[in-house]
Amino acid sequence: MPLRPQPSPLAYVPFVSVDNMMRLVNSLGVEAFLTELATYIEADFRRWPEFDKTPRVASHSRDGVIELMPTADAENYGFKYVNGHPKNMRAGYQTVTAFGVLSSVANGYPILLSEMTVLTALRTAATSGLVGRYLAPEGARVMAMIGNGAQCEFQALAFRALCGIDRLRLYDIDPAATEKAARNLAAQGFQITRCGSAQEVVEGAQVITTCTADKQCATVLTDNMVGSGIHINAIGGDCPGKTELHRDILLRSDIFVEYPPQTRVEGEIQQLAPDHPVQELWQVMRAEAPGRRDGRQITLFDSVGFAIEDFSALRFVHDRIQDTEFFEPLDLLADPDDPRDLYGMLIRAGRPSEAAPKP
Amino acid sequence: MPLRPQPSPLAYVPFVSVDNMMRLVNSLGVEAFLTELATYIEADFRRWPEFDKTPRVASHSRDGVIELMPTADAENYGFKYVNGHPKNMRAGYQTVTAFGVLSSVANGYPILLSEMTVLTALRTAATSGLVGRYLAPEGARVMAMIGNGAQCEFQALAFRALCGIDRLRLYDIDPAATEKAARNLAAQGFQITRCGSAQEVVEGAQVITTCTADKQCATVLTDNMVGSGIHINAIGGDCPGKTELHRDILLRSDIFVEYPPQTRVEGEIQQLAPDHPVQELWQVMRAEAPGRRDGRQITLFDSVGFAIEDFSALRFVHDRIQDTEFFEPLDLLADPDDPRDLYGMLIRAGRPSEAAPKP
Repeated sequence: MPLRPQPSPLAYVPFVSVDNMMRLVNSLGVEAFLTELATYIEADFRRWPEFDKTPRVASHSRDGVIELMPTADAENYGFKYVNGHPKNMRAGYQTVTAFGVLSSVANGYPILLSEMTVLTALRTAATSGLVGRYLAPEGARVMAMIGNGAQCEFQALAFRALCGIDRLRLYDIDPAATEKAARNLAAQGFQITRCGSAQEVVEGAQVITTCTADKQCATVLTDNMVGSGIHINAIGGDCPGKTELHRDILLRSDIFVEYPPQTRVEGEIQQLAPDHPVQELWQVMRAEAPGRRDGRQITLFDSVGFAIEDFSALRFVHDRIQDTEFFEPLDLLADPDDPRDLYGMLIRAGRPSEAAPKP
Repeated sequence: MPLRPQPSPLAYVPFVSVDNMMRLVNSLGVEAFLTELATYIEADFRRWPEFDKTPRVASHSRDGVIELMPTADAENYGFKYVNGHPKNMRAGYQTVTAFGVLSSVANGYPILLSEMTVLTALRTAATSGLVGRYLAPEGARVMAMIGNGAQCEFQALAFRALCGIDRLRLYDIDPAATEKAARNLAAQGFQITRCGSAQEVVEGAQVITTCTADKQCATVLTDNMVGSGIHINAIGGDCPGKTELHRDILLRSDIFVEYPPQTRVEGEIQQLAPDHPVQELWQVMRAEAPGRRDGRQITLFDSVGFAIEDFSALRFVHDRIQDTEFFEPLDLLADPDDPRDLYGMLIRAGRPSEAAPKP
């Protein structure tokens, strides 16, 4: 029994570790999690004007980038820390790791600290699936996936849960990545076709997802590969100097984006003039702008990932962990009895008569 | 013994809780901690051009502000989350709470998560004391302190450890705050004078520290109260619309700042023309610009707090906790065996044969 006075409840922030995030996701099932998460994202897109929005704050270095992505509504403030280091994989590290915090705007206190490596993969996929519901052609069942890395399975499951995709054509420059994705997704009941080239993978697909990681301008999809009526879900082009699609595809497509000031710098459209017309997804979701108009149109979701999606994900996790064991209290905030007496709290903690020995 | 495979060491981030921060500080002693921390801050100011610098990213609301303060050098990236909510105190919450992260630039992985409510109080004081060493008049021993809240004792100890101040004159509009500070500081051997007004408190002081919390333009110090030769350590004016000093004092002072783009928006100098001359402290510390020139000059440190000071503090804590028990490993980062197989890690974690029951 420690003699040291324990911190009050105000000092504790609920923390969702990677382990607990996986328990939470598995307790619901991945597709159910994605579907529920998409309802949070859609609800927040529909109240887009209520948010305090800013492009992410990026710190670029030779091998990667570290970003902070804040946003807030009247009630909550949220931010995510996320890195992107394409070379990490070769050293056994994740390309992308992330964590995030949700806070109360009223008093500035964090109310949730959560891992977001797993959660970002889920929110990115849920956003793509949600957007697919507005833009994919009617009755689409076949999706081509170029890039079969860490995001691939989540995209596939989101497109099944939200759009009805059940057949996948997979291609990656590394056949081991395709093999990994094929194994994981066949076990979930998808009909899988492994393909040997980008040219081959797009054959017969109604949706094309590009999701490669190199931090450079690559061309994983050329103009001749994209027929009419296709929905392109372009995930990988998400920072300055990193794109995946040939410029001519963009010129033939109706382009849909999350937040233009960020996408113009980071997305596929960094290849276009700064005033090239784009459609904002929040307006589509509010039915204030058209989504897909006809079966011949090429639609392009130029996904870069925006802070509001992380905010939605944190809000969802915060709601979902109530009355569960999927979090632990973290002693992150000082909470002196008298808020002006931070020093007194520190000194009292150091007194032998009040401090218990370290267990 | 759990059957679930345990995360690898890559998945864990060292976490310094409030409790462990207090243990660390008390193990060194507050003044020794401030002195050592000041050497880190001074070293980082002296290599100022090496840092990636940006004004903090603030989200303002009716009752307060939530800020992110990032910076990086070639090796490390750091940021702090900090709120400022002056009304919190009345509800039993801290006006300022904070936490921060230090990461590796090379791979983007966090290497430290730390509470920073206590640490911010210490770094703010260490910076003031360090600046005082360059600007306070020779032989200064008496400091007047206007505002005796949570920052007061730390400022006093930093000015004793770094500048030789041993006599304090205290004033706060709330006598209970003065009583709290007087009690804490008398116990540390300071000679204390409690004062009933700002006019009275400055009598005979060589250094004046202003540290009040109201989010508004207040005038805690008027021009007639400041004689020649004084060093003013202005802590409280630190966000737009929040100042403490009468404008005429600024016009008579040589003004020293951390990072002009931030201070011009947040500091006392928001009252002046945007091109009013100021001196950058990093140049003073590199002996590339003068500090105090003579005994009649009024020097003003227009402190707002800059990200590099937090970076220094995180770097110091990171160094200091090595080979101690003052941290715990936090399961913050997903670490699949195959970095491309995040999904496989998630699914395997949910299999009953591999998952242990929650203890």
